Amino acid sequence: MLTLYSMQSSGNSYKVRMLLARMAMPYHLIEIDRFKGENRTPEYLAINPDGRLPALQLDDGRMLAESNAILVYLAQGTPWLPEDRFDYAETLRWMFFEQHSHEPAIAEARFWLHFVRGGRELRKHEIDQWMERGYAALSLMNQHLSTHDFFVGNRETVADLALYAHTHVAPEGEFDLSAFPAIQRWLARIASQAAHIPLDAAHSSVSFGISPRSGTPAG
Amino acid sequence: MLTLYSMQSSGNSYKVRMLLARMAMPYHLIEIDRFKGENRTPEYLAINPDGRLPALQLDDGRMLAESNAILVYLAQGTPWLPEDRFDYAETLRWMFFEQHSHEPAIAEARFWLHFVRGGRELRKHEIDQWMERGYAALSLMNQHLSTHDFFVGNRETVADLALYAHTHVAPEGEFDLSAFPAIQRWLARIASQAAHIPLDAAHSSVSFGISPRSGTPAG
Repeated sequence: MLTLYSMQSSGNSYKVRMLLARMAMPYHLIEIDRFKGENRTPEYLAINPDGRLPALQLDDGRMLAESNAILVYLAQGTPWLPEDRFDYAETLRWMFFEQHSHEPAIAEARFWLHFVRGGRELRKHEIDQWMERGYAALSLMNQHLSTHDFFVGNRETVADLALYAHTHVAPEGEFDLSAFPAIQRWLARIASQAAHIPLDAAHSSVSFGISPRSGTPAG
Repeated sequence: MLTLYSMQSSGNSYKVRMLLARMAMPYHLIEIDRFKGENRTPEYLAINPDGRLPALQLDDGRMLAESNAILVYLAQGTPWLPEDRFDYAETLRWMFFEQHSHEPAIAEARFWLHFVRGGRELRKHEIDQWMERGYAALSLMNQHLSTHDFFVGNRETVADLALYAHTHVAPEGEFDLSAFPAIQRWLARIASQAAHIPLDAAHSSVSFGISPRSGTPAG
């Protein structure tokens, strides 16, 4: 069975949990709390030298990093990854956009302004740039979604999941989505898909967790 | 024939030119100078509303953006994209790493410190972070390359090309590569591959360009 090392509040981890829930694929979930430094313990670094989250461990012990690479790995051969060569490339296009132009602004703003006490002061020189880049990314998304129900083709793909994860909590990073009606309609569309789970879904509803030490089912 | 909208000094454009040269695939190359705002002219925006570079135009007029998505599109079915499912995901893993954790630090430093007059003063609050993040990315690469000749498997893939493009000019962004011997060996290994072209290769040696207005072969 697959093991996902994940953090509940992390948008990047949520992407993978969303896809696994939609695919009804059972997996072990191990919660790692970055705020407590659990991703830097010798135990976790022995499993995943990279120390980042999420990370997917296969049955044979091999580890895969990078949320979007994990999404593509899991979605191979499913409707969440288009077969058509151009649509497939377009799916990757939006996922690279997400990691380059979207997440670094929108998720960083959420992290420092919503989660870290004193983050606003610590990162005061970056806030304007997060806003400028984040709104540019949201504008491009809104423009595309004003003529498309989903990012690629006529159904939900991993590109939608990758972009949904941080966009739906962008207001926690102080982004105002009211000027982006097409994004708002798309957020509702994604949230209404079968087997959708919210970011704060209890783990037991979609998976069962084991403690990294005891191996005891926790959910 | 494919048309590539490219900028000579851009690492992201260079990735695609490298792959096309290795595959000996003929293409039209249209040089767009971002420093002169040529990516913001009405003519270019009519072709590519995104305004970014590089962009690949197919025979039927469809446009594909994002350098790494273009690499995957072109490499489908070639040895530059592994068939094995895990190796394929690993290739994408390094490409997402490149766009998220590598390029935003290393290419930004090169852009502002090497190309833009007064860039050091304009971006003085960002330099420490570029250095911290850039060196973290280089350290992870060096660690991996100390036990691997290439990023994935036993031959060059698009992951190597994606990472080579900005790494080999990282010193222009004031990154010192002397502490990363495995990266240095890998850079030499990539540069010694068949049909390798340097960043400043004359276009006529690998392609023939047309002017966006006249359609006249320029190279």
